[in-house]
Amino acid sequence: MFSSDSVQPLGLSAKARRTGEQPISFLMAAVLADPNLINFAAGLVDPLTLPVGPTRQIVETIFADERRARAALQYDTTLGLASLRRAALAHLENLEQKPTADFGLTERDIVITTGSQQALYLIGDVLIDPGDIVIAANPCYFVYTGTLASLGANVLTVPMTYDGIDVDAIEKLLVKLERENRLDRVKLIYSTTYYQNPTGLTLCAAARPRLLEIARRFSRRNRILILEDAAYRELRYDGPALASIKSLDRDNRYTILTQTFSKPFAPGLKTGYTAMPSELMEAILHQKGNHDFGSPSLTQHIAVEAMASGLYGRHVRLLCDSYRSKRDAMLDSLDKYIPASAGISWTRPAGGLYIWVTLPEGADSSRASALFKRCVENGVLYVPGDYCFQPDENGFVPRNHLRLSFGQVAPNQIGPGIERLAQAIIEVLQQPSRAAVAPVNSRT
Amino acid sequence: MFSSDSVQPLGLSAKARRTGEQPISFLMAAVLADPNLINFAAGLVDPLTLPVGPTRQIVETIFADERRARAALQYDTTLGLASLRRAALAHLENLEQKPTADFGLTERDIVITTGSQQALYLIGDVLIDPGDIVIAANPCYFVYTGTLASLGANVLTVPMTYDGIDVDAIEKLLVKLERENRLDRVKLIYSTTYYQNPTGLTLCAAARPRLLEIARRFSRRNRILILEDAAYRELRYDGPALASIKSLDRDNRYTILTQTFSKPFAPGLKTGYTAMPSELMEAILHQKGNHDFGSPSLTQHIAVEAMASGLYGRHVRLLCDSYRSKRDAMLDSLDKYIPASAGISWTRPAGGLYIWVTLPEGADSSRASALFKRCVENGVLYVPGDYCFQPDENGFVPRNHLRLSFGQVAPNQIGPGIERLAQAIIEVLQQPSRAAVAPVNSRT
Repeated sequence: MFSSDSVQPLGLSAKARRTGEQPISFLMAAVLADPNLINFAAGLVDPLTLPVGPTRQIVETIFADERRARAALQYDTTLGLASLRRAALAHLENLEQKPTADFGLTERDIVITTGSQQALYLIGDVLIDPGDIVIAANPCYFVYTGTLASLGANVLTVPMTYDGIDVDAIEKLLVKLERENRLDRVKLIYSTTYYQNPTGLTLCAAARPRLLEIARRFSRRNRILILEDAAYRELRYDGPALASIKSLDRDNRYTILTQTFSKPFAPGLKTGYTAMPSELMEAILHQKGNHDFGSPSLTQHIAVEAMASGLYGRHVRLLCDSYRSKRDAMLDSLDKYIPASAGISWTRPAGGLYIWVTLPEGADSSRASALFKRCVENGVLYVPGDYCFQPDENGFVPRNHLRLSFGQVAPNQIGPGIERLAQAIIEVLQQPSRAAVAPVNSRT
Repeated sequence: MFSSDSVQPLGLSAKARRTGEQPISFLMAAVLADPNLINFAAGLVDPLTLPVGPTRQIVETIFADERRARAALQYDTTLGLASLRRAALAHLENLEQKPTADFGLTERDIVITTGSQQALYLIGDVLIDPGDIVIAANPCYFVYTGTLASLGANVLTVPMTYDGIDVDAIEKLLVKLERENRLDRVKLIYSTTYYQNPTGLTLCAAARPRLLEIARRFSRRNRILILEDAAYRELRYDGPALASIKSLDRDNRYTILTQTFSKPFAPGLKTGYTAMPSELMEAILHQKGNHDFGSPSLTQHIAVEAMASGLYGRHVRLLCDSYRSKRDAMLDSLDKYIPASAGISWTRPAGGLYIWVTLPEGADSSRASALFKRCVENGVLYVPGDYCFQPDENGFVPRNHLRLSFGQVAPNQIGPGIERLAQAIIEVLQQPSRAAVAPVNSRT
């Protein structure tokens, strides 16, 4: 119903002009076009293990108490429901296996947000002016690097190693930035310290105090904060339960820890909690006050009752059992369907939702590649690894990786999905491709 | 547990440094200090009429259907639940009494946000660069003018009249800005068109098409958008049900309409919906994707079931009956306890939650005033009117107004509260005050 006369353009802000679409919406379109696709691309959680029964029971408990039900339907504070902040604090004590007083935290240092994504956004917003530096791993959680770019951040990268973000490389980078007189522009070191999205890799125990020491040492005139994204922390299937960097930060000064109820309980609550230094908290609250003066009360009341009733803990154990067997099914299928001779490797994560596959150098998994096309034809979807990388200083982005998620896929679909994927990979790798003969933007 | 060594300051962003605390947190502190205060200051809704029973019933319906319950606990899209956007569209048709096609809206033009506050924030964020102009009424909803200031907006004001924002003054201001070559900086005209916070006044029917015509006419190189905040629209106690400006904007080009479930149903759901031009929607979605990639699913599922079941409509009628009698009680008490000879006037709003009291010129109701102090001693709280004003070009802010809300106060507390307030006012007005003798910052 648009009339034919011309209409003036909108005068969008500089920030809006810097903000693009989330890069992987084309994957959503592929799923809509073929609902029978086996979707290893989606970052969704498993629909079959969503806590329908527990949530029903929790809501009944809340609404059986008129006073509590009213509180759940009324406004609460910008900081978030006090009982939920206390429960989150007690939960952290339990995860870290030491009293929160040992790392300088009280319930006033925890804010409840609309998922941990909102916390990540707000942290960027209150710290970053265009041109400020954030240090992150390459590859990295691409939604957040997109957010940082929209804020005008200069995201400088260091490699991922099998022990997590490369802490030695961070130190070298900071030495270089100090030499160039750019240390004051460094605001954040961002790291998903447990079962990283996209690689599934974890920052090892030894690197944790070292990273904290580096952040502290290079905080000269301005503080350099570590942003420890622990969204997948509680989805642990084997291996040790590592203490967070936050728990080592005795005075609550150099570390921000974000956690969420989305992955270990239910994304539909969209409720996260973040512990941070108190000076930062003040700035975050002012900003969040402008955004929404507090996340929805009802979902916060559900989260607190989930923890108090023990239903949360029980559900996490159930989820871990379910995801563990799906991870194992995916690893077994990769072993089975991808020949050892193919020069293809993948990570074996101890938790989280992702496995990272590395094809031989020169192979191309990008959206426009023959492999991606072949996979869609075969009825299987992955996230092209290049979406998870920032270009290096020569503009190079590796294109030989795939992010696979076993999160959303039904257990009996994992084998068939990996078989389809393996067929496509083998078929395409065997073809003499122009990319393999004359690599574009390759390192060598 | 802070050690004594010095710690480096945080390097906050320019925006964080522009963002202050919400100005009226001192009122919260007053309430905490004396829980027996009769609180006419709070913008909360009535706790007694919160929809406890209906919400319980709605959640039972949702959780009785496993598929639906799973969807409510899973992620949804950034735009929001499709069924809720369709329900909101149908609801708008009903409110406007004409098909949404007549004003160019489809369900793709509606976004679901975490309360309408998030929509207001996002709209500011994607349109405003520091120095850009927003035209607003004086007085105005101060949380939003605070948000606009944090975004660096230059908020230029026009008076409120008994017929709502002064449309003639807007036209004159735009003529002046055009003469000064500043028209390109004008991004928004912000107006609460129904039962405004803080005055309770409504933009009259005749002014609505005129404001739209003005926005269209002064959109030269850039479009000037009307941001129509209709948060209180459905809390209508008498008087006509006016069509929105949005409903007059045939091609969905010049108007943004924000509405919410918070006021007419439950703030605890923190769910709002906003209709806007499609080019703006694109920018908003990119930004909201970075904020939270979508508001909580569960609360959206509750909102859609509330509408589908008819419980929403029934609750709005119940609320209107309850608030109407509280408004009447407040107006009756003001008539009763404030002598006609005192030179004090107040608005008689046809809806919403607020009554705006005007004391004689020279009187002082500000936070530091004898009146405010006397009221707290008497056990009654109001919002000092000066918080709702932007200074005029001479830096003048009127201090002779009070915002009273009958929203949160129990019906039987309204009479006693107004009695206490009237006593304080009369007492303080009778004292020879320095302000009355030698007005500070007075107009004359």
